[in-house]
Amino acid sequence: MRATTDSADSAKTPTGKITIAHIAEEAGVSVPTVSKVVNGRADVARETRRRVEEIIRKYDYQRRSDQRTIKANLLDLVFHELESAWAIEIIRGVEQVARDNEMAVVLSEFQGRRTPGRGWVEDVLRRRPAAVISVFSDLSVEQQARLRSGGIPLVVVDPAGEPDPDVPSIGATNWSGGLTATRYLIGLGHQRIAVIGGPERTLCSRARVDGYRSAMETAGLSVDPALVRHGDFHVEAGYQQAAALLGRPDPPTAVFAGSDLQAMGVYQAAREAGLRVPEDLSVIGFDDLPVAQWIGPPLTTIRQPLEEMAAAGARLALSLAVGDEPAHTRIELATSLVVRGSTAAPRQAE
Amino acid sequence: MRATTDSADSAKTPTGKITIAHIAEEAGVSVPTVSKVVNGRADVARETRRRVEEIIRKYDYQRRSDQRTIKANLLDLVFHELESAWAIEIIRGVEQVARDNEMAVVLSEFQGRRTPGRGWVEDVLRRRPAAVISVFSDLSVEQQARLRSGGIPLVVVDPAGEPDPDVPSIGATNWSGGLTATRYLIGLGHQRIAVIGGPERTLCSRARVDGYRSAMETAGLSVDPALVRHGDFHVEAGYQQAAALLGRPDPPTAVFAGSDLQAMGVYQAAREAGLRVPEDLSVIGFDDLPVAQWIGPPLTTIRQPLEEMAAAGARLALSLAVGDEPAHTRIELATSLVVRGSTAAPRQAE
Repeated sequence: MRATTDSADSAKTPTGKITIAHIAEEAGVSVPTVSKVVNGRADVARETRRRVEEIIRKYDYQRRSDQRTIKANLLDLVFHELESAWAIEIIRGVEQVARDNEMAVVLSEFQGRRTPGRGWVEDVLRRRPAAVISVFSDLSVEQQARLRSGGIPLVVVDPAGEPDPDVPSIGATNWSGGLTATRYLIGLGHQRIAVIGGPERTLCSRARVDGYRSAMETAGLSVDPALVRHGDFHVEAGYQQAAALLGRPDPPTAVFAGSDLQAMGVYQAAREAGLRVPEDLSVIGFDDLPVAQWIGPPLTTIRQPLEEMAAAGARLALSLAVGDEPAHTRIELATSLVVRGSTAAPRQAE
Repeated sequence: MRATTDSADSAKTPTGKITIAHIAEEAGVSVPTVSKVVNGRADVARETRRRVEEIIRKYDYQRRSDQRTIKANLLDLVFHELESAWAIEIIRGVEQVARDNEMAVVLSEFQGRRTPGRGWVEDVLRRRPAAVISVFSDLSVEQQARLRSGGIPLVVVDPAGEPDPDVPSIGATNWSGGLTATRYLIGLGHQRIAVIGGPERTLCSRARVDGYRSAMETAGLSVDPALVRHGDFHVEAGYQQAAALLGRPDPPTAVFAGSDLQAMGVYQAAREAGLRVPEDLSVIGFDDLPVAQWIGPPLTTIRQPLEEMAAAGARLALSLAVGDEPAHTRIELATSLVVRGSTAAPRQAE
C-alpha cells in the first residue's frame, strides 16, 4: 500500500478537496485509469480497480456533480420484484417527475433478489443516470460507495420502513396507520379484533402491529396473542391466517389485514366459513390499491400514498443530482383512513 | 429543392447503397450536420433539418445497424397509459428479455395520449436504444420514419388488435378467445348470453364480439341485439352495462365481459341486484390478470398471455436490432380458457 497519512495530506488541493489526479497519484496509476474505475468501465485490471476504489473510499471522493456528464437524462428506478400490485403506483409517481423534468426512466428488476447482482452498478455508472431510486431493494455498502464516488445520488422509496440512516428515504406513517385502522374498528364497537401482519421481521409490519396494540391498550382492551398473526403480504397468507382465526372457538368480529391483498384472502376465508362481510365480519386493509374499490364489498382500508411517495423520492433524487443538500434525509408521508363497505358494527352477541 | 432524379442516381454508391455522405452532398450540408439530424441533436437549423429529413425519406436511408453505436444497451418501452392493471405484466415480459440480454429498459408513458409528443423521438434518437417497443401507442408516420432512419427498429405489442401493416407486431387471438368463452357458456346450458365489449371501434373488442356471434350462431342460437353492449374496458363500464342488462324484463343468465375489470363491475351489479355468482348469473372475463383468481368467486376467464406477448415483442425487436429479417411481421399468441368459480349451469327456468 502506498497510501499513508502523509501522502493523503499531500494529495489534497489547498482547499482540502480531493481530485481525480490526486487519487491517480496515490494509486500509482494514470488519471484515465481512475476515470475508468469511476465510470464503471470493464477494462481495468482487478487489482488496480481494488486499489483505486480503496483510495476513493478512504477520502470519500465524489465525482463532481455536473449536468454535462448526465448523458441521457435518465433516472434509474430499481425494484427487487415487480410482482406486487403496487409497483405500478410507484412507477407512475417516478414517471410523472421524470416527464416534468424531460427525463426518461430506466426500470430494473432483480427477480426477487434484494441486492442487485454484480454488473448492475457497472451498468449504472456507464449510463450515468441523474440518480438512482431504489424500492425495497438493499444495495450493498460497496454498491452504495461506487454510486457515491460516481456522483450518482441514491434515494430509497421504502414502503417496508427499514431505512438505512446513510441513505435519504421516503416512507409512510405505518404506526399511525395501524393505530387509525384499529381505533376505527373499536369505534364501531368491536372488541375481539385480530391483526394479520406482514413478515415478523419487516419493520413496516411491526410498526402497523404496534399501532394496533397501542389502539387496543389505550382503549382499555387487552390484546389476545392468539389474534396476532403474521404472514407475507400476499392473498394466500391472508387466507391462511384468516381461516385459522375463523376456525377458533372464539373468533374475532373484525380483522385488520396488513395489506389489501391479505384482505382479499380474508374475504375468501370468510366466504368459505359462510360469513358475510361486513355483517358477520369487518375487514380493513392497508395500501388502498385500485382493486380495493372494485372488490365486493369495496374494502375499507388505510391509504398508503405510494404514487406521492415515489414522486417525492424522485424529486429528492433530482435535487441531490444538482448538488442540493437535502433538508431531511427521512420523510414519512401520512397514511389515511378510507371508509368503504367492508366494516360495520359487530352483531349483538347472542 | 436541389434534389432531382439525376442527382439522386449520382448520390448512390456503385452498389446502389445510399451513404450519409451522399445525403450531405445532395442537401448541400456537411456530413456532421446530417449525422446530427440522424441522431436527433437539437443544434440544427429547422429548415436544414427539414431538407435533410426529406432526402433521408426519399431514399429510405437507414442508419447502419451497428452494435457499437448502441451506447447504453437500452430497450425503450412506450405506453400511452400505465393506468391499466395489465401494464405490469407487459413490463415484466420486456424486463425478462432485457435481463437475459444484459440490457436495461427505459419506460415512457404519455399520460393517455395515444401519440407521443414532439421531443420524444429526439430523446430516443439521442439515447440510441437497441429498439423501441410500443404498447397501444400510435407513433406518427414521421416518428416512425425518423426511428427508421436512425436505425432503431420498432415493434408493437398490440393487445388492441389494430396492427399497422408496416410495423412488426405481437397480438393475441381475440376472435378465438371470444368464440371459446361463448362456447363454454353454451356448453353449460346457457342460451341468453350477453356480451359486454370494449369501445366499439377497438378491433380487439370487435374480434371478441364477433367470436361470440359465431359461437352463438353455429350453436343455432340467435343473438339478441339488446344483449350486445359496449363500454370501455374498466370496472365502471362493466358495472353500468351489467346493471342495464340485469334490469331488463328478460335478463341474461350469463355475461361474457370484455375484460377482467369489466367482469368485476358485473359482480358488483349482480350483488346490487341480489343475484349470486354463479348460481344466478355466470360471468366470464378476458385477460386473466392476477386479480381474477383473488376475487370472490374466482373468475373464469380467457387468458391473454400478456407477459409472453411482451417477451416475444422484445425478442423480435432485438433480432431486428442486429439486422435479422423477421420471419413474420405479425404474430398472434393463443388465448386459452381458465375455468374457475364464476360459471355454472343456469338454474332451471320456473
